[in-house]
This record gives sequence, C-alpha cells and structure tokens, in this order.
Amino acid sequence: MIDSKHLDYFKEVVGEENIRADKAHLIAYCYDATKERFEPDAVIFPRDEQDVSKILKYCNEHKIVIVPRGAGSGFTGGALPSNGGIILSLERHMNKLLEIDMENMVGVVQPGLINMEFQKAVEEVGLFYPPDPASEQYSTLGGNVSENAGGMRAAKYGITKDYVVALRAVLPSGEIITAGKKTIKDVAGYNTAGILIASEGTLAVITEITLKLIPKPKYKQTYMGVFPDVNKAMNAVFKSLANGANPVAMEFLDTLVIKALKKKFPQVALPENAGGILVGDVDGSSQAEIDSQLETLKESFANFGSTDFVIAKDEEESAKLWFARRNASPATAIYGTKKLNEDISVPRAKLPEALDGIYKIGEKYGFNVPCFGHAGDGNIHVNVMVKDKTNEKEMKDGHKAIEEIFQFVVDLEGTLSGEHGIGLSKAPFMSIAFNEAELNLFRSIKKAFDPNNILNPFKMGL
Amino acid sequence: MIDSKHLDYFKEVVGEENIRADKAHLIAYCYDATKERFEPDAVIFPRDEQDVSKILKYCNEHKIVIVPRGAGSGFTGGALPSNGGIILSLERHMNKLLEIDMENMVGVVQPGLINMEFQKAVEEVGLFYPPDPASEQYSTLGGNVSENAGGMRAAKYGITKDYVVALRAVLPSGEIITAGKKTIKDVAGYNTAGILIASEGTLAVITEITLKLIPKPKYKQTYMGVFPDVNKAMNAVFKSLANGANPVAMEFLDTLVIKALKKKFPQVALPENAGGILVGDVDGSSQAEIDSQLETLKESFANFGSTDFVIAKDEEESAKLWFARRNASPATAIYGTKKLNEDISVPRAKLPEALDGIYKIGEKYGFNVPCFGHAGDGNIHVNVMVKDKTNEKEMKDGHKAIEEIFQFVVDLEGTLSGEHGIGLSKAPFMSIAFNEAELNLFRSIKKAFDPNNILNPFKMGL
Repeated sequence: MIDSKHLDYFKEVVGEENIRADKAHLIAYCYDATKERFEPDAVIFPRDEQDVSKILKYCNEHKIVIVPRGAGSGFTGGALPSNGGIILSLERHMNKLLEIDMENMVGVVQPGLINMEFQKAVEEVGLFYPPDPASEQYSTLGGNVSENAGGMRAAKYGITKDYVVALRAVLPSGEIITAGKKTIKDVAGYNTAGILIASEGTLAVITEITLKLIPKPKYKQTYMGVFPDVNKAMNAVFKSLANGANPVAMEFLDTLVIKALKKKFPQVALPENAGGILVGDVDGSSQAEIDSQLETLKESFANFGSTDFVIAKDEEESAKLWFARRNASPATAIYGTKKLNEDISVPRAKLPEALDGIYKIGEKYGFNVPCFGHAGDGNIHVNVMVKDKTNEKEMKDGHKAIEEIFQFVVDLEGTLSGEHGIGLSKAPFMSIAFNEAELNLFRSIKKAFDPNNILNPFKMGL
Repeated sequence: MIDSKHLDYFKEVVGEENIRADKAHLIAYCYDATKERFEPDAVIFPRDEQDVSKILKYCNEHKIVIVPRGAGSGFTGGALPSNGGIILSLERHMNKLLEIDMENMVGVVQPGLINMEFQKAVEEVGLFYPPDPASEQYSTLGGNVSENAGGMRAAKYGITKDYVVALRAVLPSGEIITAGKKTIKDVAGYNTAGILIASEGTLAVITEITLKLIPKPKYKQTYMGVFPDVNKAMNAVFKSLANGANPVAMEFLDTLVIKALKKKFPQVALPENAGGILVGDVDGSSQAEIDSQLETLKESFANFGSTDFVIAKDEEESAKLWFARRNASPATAIYGTKKLNEDISVPRAKLPEALDGIYKIGEKYGFNVPCFGHAGDGNIHVNVMVKDKTNEKEMKDGHKAIEEIFQFVVDLEGTLSGEHGIGLSKAPFMSIAFNEAELNLFRSIKKAFDPNNILNPFKMGL
C-alpha cells in the first residue's frame, strides 16, 4: 500500500500537478480494452526519463508495484494494475516526436507518442512506418513495442519488432540503459532490445524508441478475391504467397462474417455467393509492379476456385472494398451479446485446417464462431459468440471452447497470440503453449531485470 | 579438469567414436580465424539433441566448461576454449537440412549445416535465403545465428536475425526449449529467440533453426560507381539510399584499397582516377524495376560527384566488377606484415565523418588504414596495417590506434562490431560501448540462463 510519505516523495520528484490519487483519476486509469477493472493506488505522469528513473529507484527500494501505461488500449490487461500500486502514465508528457533522421531513415520518439501521429509525420517527408495496428488512431508506440503490435500491413512489411532499431529504458533499479544503436548492424553485447519488445512492461520502462523507416511506396491499389467457401480462400492465401504474390495486406472474412455484414450493413456491396473473401492492398514503386502483383494474385486465386476478383479503380472504390473488413468486428454482434475474442496465429499453410477445427469446436458447444483477420500472416481473430451473457452455463462453455481452441492451435504449431499479448487474459493458458523449462526460463529472465518483482508483476503468467 | 570418469560418461552417451581427447584432435579444435590458440580437454561430437541435453546436464552438475563450435571460422574467438573444457562440435552429425517448407516459406536446419549448402538447396526450389557472410562457403548456420552474421546483401535484405523464425535449444540444465514458432506473428512469452541470436554460445546450445525464406528475385545486375575521393563516395551512400535506391549491396573501396588492388592485381580494371568506389548488385522481379533502380543510383551518385557509373551487361562483366571488392582483403597485405582488422559500424550518414576520423587516428600513429566493406549498412572493415609485426612498439601503437578508433566510433553513435561479435578479441573494449548498468544486465541475463557459468564462460567480457 502507498502511504502519504510515499506520495510526498513522488510529489517532490514530478511536482504536485503530476500525481493523482483522487477517486476520479483512479477510475480513469482502471481500465483497458478488456472488461476487467482494477484501480491503482495512484497515477503518476513522469515528465522525462529522469523522473522515471527516480520513481523506479524509489519503488524498487520500497517494493512498490508500478505498472507502465500508454493509451490503455490493450486487449489482454497488460496495463491494468491488477495488484494495485502505481500507474506510470507515459502519454501526458513523454509523447514527443524527437527526431526524424532522414539521412539514416529512422525516427526517434518517446513512448507516449500515438502511432498515427508518427505515421503522418514521417509520411509528410516521404518516408513510411508500416506497423498499423487497428488501434493506430489512439495506441501509443510504447504500447506497440511492449506488445509487439502487428497490423494490416504485416503480410508484406512485418510487425513492430522488425522496425525497432534501438531503445532507451529504465530498469527497476532506476538505472538507464540503451539497447541497440542507430546502426543497421550491431552485434556487441546481448540483444536486450530484442527481449524488451513484447515484454509487456514487465522488464523495464521504455523511455525512447528508435524506429526504422522505409521510403514511402509510390503506388497502391486495393483488390478483393471472392471465394465460394472459406476453405478455398484459406488455400488461396498461402499458395498465392508461395507463388510470389507479395501484397501489403491479405485480410479475410469468413462465411459467418459475410452474412453478418450483409445483415447489419445492407449498403455493403458483397457478391451474393461469397462464402469467403480475401481483401487487401498491393503497393510498389511503379504501376507496372502493381499490375504484375495483381495479375499474380488474380491467377493464383482463380487456381483455387475464386469466383470474382475485383480491383479498385480509385480511392472511393478502395474504401468500399475495405468497408467490409473494417466493419467485420461490429457486424459479428448479431450472433450474441458477448464476444469471446482471441487472436491466435498459425503457420499460413495450416489456415484451412485451423479454421475447420475452430468451427468444429464451436459446433460442439453450440456457438457461432465468426472469424476474420490477417490471413496473409496466419493471424486469425476468432470470435466465440455467446448468445446470452447472463447465462452462466453458456459463458462457462464459451470459456471451455476458447481453451480447447488454444490447445488445438498449439497442436497445429500455432501460438496463443499473434498480436494482443498475454497480459492477464491469456495468462491461464501459458502452460498450454510452454513447457516447464520455458516458463522457468521466463521467470529467470524476469528476475534478471526485476529482482524485486515490482514492475507489472504476475503478468504473462509469471 | 576432465578426468577419466567424466570421459567414460561421455563415451557412454555419444559412443566411443564421438569423443576425442588425443593431441591431434585437441590441436585440430584449438583454432578459429583469429590468431589465438587454446586447446580443449576433449572434443565431443553429439549425434542429436538428446546427446546435447545429456552432456549439458552432466557438465552443469559437474561444473565442466563446454564451448559449442560450428566451423570455427569466427573472427573474435567465440568458439575458442579459452578456459579449457569441452568443445561441443556440431558440424559432424548435427548438420542436416531437415525441411524446406515451401508452403510456409521456411527452412528447418540443424546448427552444423553450412550456409552455402542451405542457400543452394533453397534456390533450387525457387526460394532465397539472403544472409551471405564472406564465410558462406564454410561457416555454419548455427555459428551465423550465434554471431548474428551479416554479409553483402544486408543493405537490402537485412541480417541473420531478420530470418530467424524459431529456435530449439538446450539450456545448461539439459532442458530443451523452443523459442518462436513457424508463425509470422507470435507474441506469447518473452522473445527468447531474440536474445539467443548473437549470444555467442554463452546462453544455450542451439539444436534446430527455423529460417524465413523469400521468393528468389528473378533479375539481378551489377553496378559500380567511381568517385574522385572517399568522402564523396561516402556521402553518395546514404544520400542515394535516402533518395529511394534500394540495392542488394553497396560495398565500398577506399583510396588505399584501390591503390593496393592495382599494385597486387594488375589485371584489375579500375579507372585511373578512382579515389573511392561503390559496387554492388540491384535485383527485382522485372527488368524495369532493375533499370529504375540503376537510374536512381546513377543520378544520385552523379549528384555527389561520381566520375563514372558502370553497369555489367552479363555474368562475366559482373564478375570483373566484383573482383576488386572480393580481393580487397588480400590486397591490403602490401601495407604491412600484420593486419589489425575490426568491423565497426556507424549510422550510415556518419560514414564520411567516420572514415575521416579513422584516417586521422591512423596518421597520428603512422599507420596506413585501408578501409572497405558494407557501406550500404554502415559497416566498415577497418585495417590498421602494422609494417613490422616483430616491432613491439609498432604493435603496441597498433592496438592503441584500434582502441582509439573504437572510442571514436562509439562517440559517433556507432558500435564495436557490425558482424564479427565480441568473443575474446573485443572483450577488453566492452566498457567503451556499455555503461556499468548495461554490463551488469548482461551478466544477470547470462546467469538467468547459465547459473553455473559452464557455457562458453568469460566471453563477451562477461
């Protein structure tokens, strides 16, 4: 518990205006995108790295729990103070774009900067930062790094970890470290940046991020492939990619999602016979490159039974094609009052088998399980739709179905999470995915960074 | 020290034919590409992961030092048994290509497989594994991962770490872990694969590697840009890349190297007035893409004072252009009997300043310092040429110059090593690059994996 002596010290460090312990603030910082709620004991808004360092050093000495937080948009409770303690909120002051280094093609940012603000700033100077999680309008880059966020463009451009060149971070001891350099190659010392990415705020507080930028592709065009069923669409995914197609995105909608979209959004223009849809963009440095990409996709899709291949002629047509994908999540609400959604990931070639098995598990328990997501990288958003969330038996069955899906996915060489992380929500399932040696190693790594277990403790099942 | 009781146990595990402690073998496994020599107490050739596990478990219990080894081609002593103990040689049995998974576009290999054998196998089926260290003909993929090897194609395609999808490894306890999956996205648990890469065999013994493959580019062409001096060439590097050029490789030769090449290889066709050269390949999926790339390079180079831009018309012309780069290292021998060579790396835009400073340090001590290397990714092979290696004063000055170069490079936001690692050779310089908190964190990480310090101990300055 935090007493007034502690609060006095924190006030001294950050100034009275940057610490809050009133009920309104505790409630304002008790949530994320899960339905869980945990009030912290106080919220601190550090002004800079020195503040972070002083706060951590003090908390470490006094064994006070501290939970770093960006926008609180996470899906698995990573930023929730489930064991009380202090929320270290990085979005108020530590949200600056520090530098766009055109010559070395990197951007240097503070962790609280919002993803989309960064994207816009770099695109203004002709550069490009590909990672675009669905939360890009409000999630912070610090959160993106801590969860290793993915996004629509991962099929071609990879995920957050592929763009982190260097980090500055504060250890629980208060010591400041840098991990990585602005250089492209650096093999001196252990790759601590590599382990800080996706560590969900459990190892250190990231205070500065250097991100790789690439030239902004000059041309972009949207395509949509329509298939009679999901299985054909899923086969077309990996076989078209293995044939040399390299789309920016290859998103998919299954039969249930298509049905839901038509019902909920009558204006959506989807073919009558669509049982599975693949939609995405291709990009490149010339129209010829785009055309050749579209041709490869069209041919490959046709080989796997596509009934239609649409190419958007302009921005407006592109927006129409994307409309269905962007509204997939709200549309699924027609199937129930509670959505148990997970973001499993499998090797791409296992997609047909994965979808098939997921539907069977749903049927067994009597659930509709509409699926959509990032087929191009094997990442599926699975939605177990509970019809009546007040029905205890149904909710229990829903959770049983989810656990069965996890086990099934791991047996397919897949993983519990493609982009949302483990946090609190998936912590109970860690033993499905990892053996005792692996879990013990995670605990040893945690201890190496945070011997007093003050930093976001007990997350990730640790 | 290893006694006969220990040897008996190892014989029982791997069979008599897979352990050697005779002088001939101890000498055969005492070297790498440095000039250092350390004899092990025994050499063991494990047949499989189970052998590795049993050996490590036993060594851990008996505190016997064990040093994993691939081809022994490292430049910094990473595979040398500098504290005695056992060489665990993975190149005899654990050298298989296990799978090329065309559908998921990954290859699965054992650590002892030679890089070039893997490249050839994947290219035969139309895929491509870009990392191509200069040692590709003999270095193993396990060594490449352990050192995070780079290569000529890093400018466009990145380095080994960008291709490691998953690892299996044996911890010093003998426990077997997997780190990562065949999936593209995986954010469950800490990124242990990330920290095993470049860990120089100090954390675990890698027993299986899953590597990302990409479609083999259909077209390739070689270019050479000629500049009146090094400074202009170095400016052209980062400015052409920032302008959208994306060559596979952008290698450079400085004035001293060019001079040496002309003297040592009179057949080399280099322009009279060349003071700095940039050479490399461009590739793509169409000739149009290649042409557009070459045009961008030619224009950008011209803007920074190039006097000539040569494009190879066929394989033979390409080989001629590459001849100079490939023979840069032997050519430098004209400047001295002993080469102190380092592979520093700086942010690309710092290349002009870096070269300038390196030459000044060389002049101060009276050394020729010919430089060449991977300019496209800021990685310079610096060669302090000692005229007479029997001259103690000169050798001492050489080492002083190297240390000064490291300090200078770190001040430029560069790093001690772009691709060779730290091992033994660069261990004394770790405190130039890292503060006490960072070094302590490395030690804590080492301890988390290897509490008894049996695995390649005291390397990397730990």
